[in-house]
Amino acid sequence: MKITDIREARVSIASEIANAYIDFSKMDVSVVAIHTDVVRHGQPVVGYGFNSNGRYAQSGLLRERFIPRLREAPASAIVDASGENLDPFRIWNVLMTNEKPGGHGERSVAVGVLDMAVWDIVAKVADLPLASLLAERFGDGSTDAQVSVYAAGGYYYPESGIAGLRAEMQDYLALGYTATKMKIGGAPLAQDIERIEAAIEVVGDPACVAVDANGRFNSAQTTAYAQALAPLGLRWFEEAGDPLDYAIQNQLAQTYPGPTATGENLFSHQDVRNLMRYAGMRADRDILQMDPVLSYGLVEYLRMLDVLREHGFSARNCIPHGGHQFALQIAAGLKLGGNESYPRVFAPFGGFADSTPITQGHVRLPEQPGIGFEDKAALMDVLRARLT
Amino acid sequence: MKITDIREARVSIASEIANAYIDFSKMDVSVVAIHTDVVRHGQPVVGYGFNSNGRYAQSGLLRERFIPRLREAPASAIVDASGENLDPFRIWNVLMTNEKPGGHGERSVAVGVLDMAVWDIVAKVADLPLASLLAERFGDGSTDAQVSVYAAGGYYYPESGIAGLRAEMQDYLALGYTATKMKIGGAPLAQDIERIEAAIEVVGDPACVAVDANGRFNSAQTTAYAQALAPLGLRWFEEAGDPLDYAIQNQLAQTYPGPTATGENLFSHQDVRNLMRYAGMRADRDILQMDPVLSYGLVEYLRMLDVLREHGFSARNCIPHGGHQFALQIAAGLKLGGNESYPRVFAPFGGFADSTPITQGHVRLPEQPGIGFEDKAALMDVLRARLT
Repeated sequence: MKITDIREARVSIASEIANAYIDFSKMDVSVVAIHTDVVRHGQPVVGYGFNSNGRYAQSGLLRERFIPRLREAPASAIVDASGENLDPFRIWNVLMTNEKPGGHGERSVAVGVLDMAVWDIVAKVADLPLASLLAERFGDGSTDAQVSVYAAGGYYYPESGIAGLRAEMQDYLALGYTATKMKIGGAPLAQDIERIEAAIEVVGDPACVAVDANGRFNSAQTTAYAQALAPLGLRWFEEAGDPLDYAIQNQLAQTYPGPTATGENLFSHQDVRNLMRYAGMRADRDILQMDPVLSYGLVEYLRMLDVLREHGFSARNCIPHGGHQFALQIAAGLKLGGNESYPRVFAPFGGFADSTPITQGHVRLPEQPGIGFEDKAALMDVLRARLT
Repeated sequence: MKITDIREARVSIASEIANAYIDFSKMDVSVVAIHTDVVRHGQPVVGYGFNSNGRYAQSGLLRERFIPRLREAPASAIVDASGENLDPFRIWNVLMTNEKPGGHGERSVAVGVLDMAVWDIVAKVADLPLASLLAERFGDGSTDAQVSVYAAGGYYYPESGIAGLRAEMQDYLALGYTATKMKIGGAPLAQDIERIEAAIEVVGDPACVAVDANGRFNSAQTTAYAQALAPLGLRWFEEAGDPLDYAIQNQLAQTYPGPTATGENLFSHQDVRNLMRYAGMRADRDILQMDPVLSYGLVEYLRMLDVLREHGFSARNCIPHGGHQFALQIAAGLKLGGNESYPRVFAPFGGFADSTPITQGHVRLPEQPGIGFEDKAALMDVLRARLT
């Protein structure tokens, strides 16, 4: 088989939301389509990819370095031993040719976008949902029939305050979610505690409410929040300090008895290995949120899972950042601990298939081959409009 | 004052060389010119920037994110308190607006290119060589009159073998260098030892020959090389393992008595802090090679120097990657330990002013205001041709 065309475009996912670090009013993503000469169900197989929110489109890197490398690679360098399907691992090596070690950002996103499209093709050529293909190749052969998802949001409302937060949490419950996550650190501690208590009251169970500081706390703030949050019994306390400050994460793990979560801003297995070595993460409770797109794609995510296993963690410790169908397929196929979701933002890239609504905090996997984009009409409209 | 124009272009620095990880046949850099309305010596002040070799041009990120942010910033957000010069720290904050923490690569290069042009302007507006400006603002007021430089090269010669390496080392001595660096890890250990012995013979002193594995060794290879190299008394042993593998660097520091060197692939003060915390670096001998352009510019480099001081290191431990006039000005102004140089490659971006040849392993600082690009005719030809 061979690749017959690669197309790329930049699409806005601007949103009015803000986290503790950035606002999303200029956020965009790269979308790609990789066309092949393999025919399934009467049509040439086309794979689609895009990046998760938060790190911007990578049109420049894709057009200047990564797409040319893939275009220039001989067919023999990118197919598997059968010659009848693409080999994502060999393609990864092609993409990373002449890239120096270290410096894991931006290019990790560009490679991840292409990697998503490649896995979409591999599953479509095999005529399997991606989750089933992953379970066969890397798991025990069976997939999770449904994946636990939680609604990430819990924004600050300068105008409506806590009433706005309550309304947002009620909305998530009405959408079928049972667990949520909310921002902290954008207000004084006492005010954040009031907000958290309001959210718990709406959601009904502190074990269903996680909090996220988005990496803004220093050591003293981390301690103050750890002490104040400990009695609440929250689902988890996410990204207290800078994502590369393993000492502050270690301090949190030693002073906060509940689960902690981090990893969405670590984009290589080397960074994850440092987290395992130095941050005092606890395999019996802590959550790892690496994003399989932002961090060089599923090929690198599999390496991260190997690092975790070497340190006594399992795939169930992982609830990836991303909130899209690719992360969902990976969660079901590799039996991760769940998946993030961002209701009502980042459309049409966020969210899952049209045929699989959120039900009691879970989402089923669609049945068609590939990642399932064809079962998400609004997304296919954008992909077709921008990539043809 | 205000910025009146910002221009960017992508320029090839293709070279036939290769290190242990990549070849440089498609290497390129971004060049920028920032125009201002301040007049000095009868001309509006223009600052120039470009990135160090090894990490490619960043045209996409510059054009899609960083140049627009600088263009859209009000003049009041980018000037200092006097209103008569740019403020590199405020500009850095403008550039990094809406950028998430972590993921330090590529964008760190884009920001570094702009940061270089900003410091060129700041020194030209102050009518001082950059080194003098830095010494006044951040040092004891005095600069190093000359900076120790070494010739990085020592390539593998598939055709001419050790004779080719000897000829290269002889060439460096003829150019005025007294210290050199050579690649290791691209051949079996015994063969590398022969190469190193040949280089020492030409250069005349093992303390003037450093070796660089470019991050390719695993733990066992690191130990094997450490044991074999220890008796030789080399200048330093650079980047044994992956740049983010602090455990392997720690192992090297504990088993290799001579100086080690690393840091050219760490692009943030957070990564450097991890190196200080976990890699067992020794302040009395080890060398830190962070690149002030690839890692978000001099603004971030100053933060790195703060981190080093907190861990008992001094600026003299630093010999930056880069090989250009910007790194040289920083080395003289902040009294670093020296500067890297890449003779005969990466022209016209590598190397120093036309009026300051290498003499007995040192290079003097040119006297004109700014970074000194105007005293390097071949570079100004390219900048003028590509940016007007």
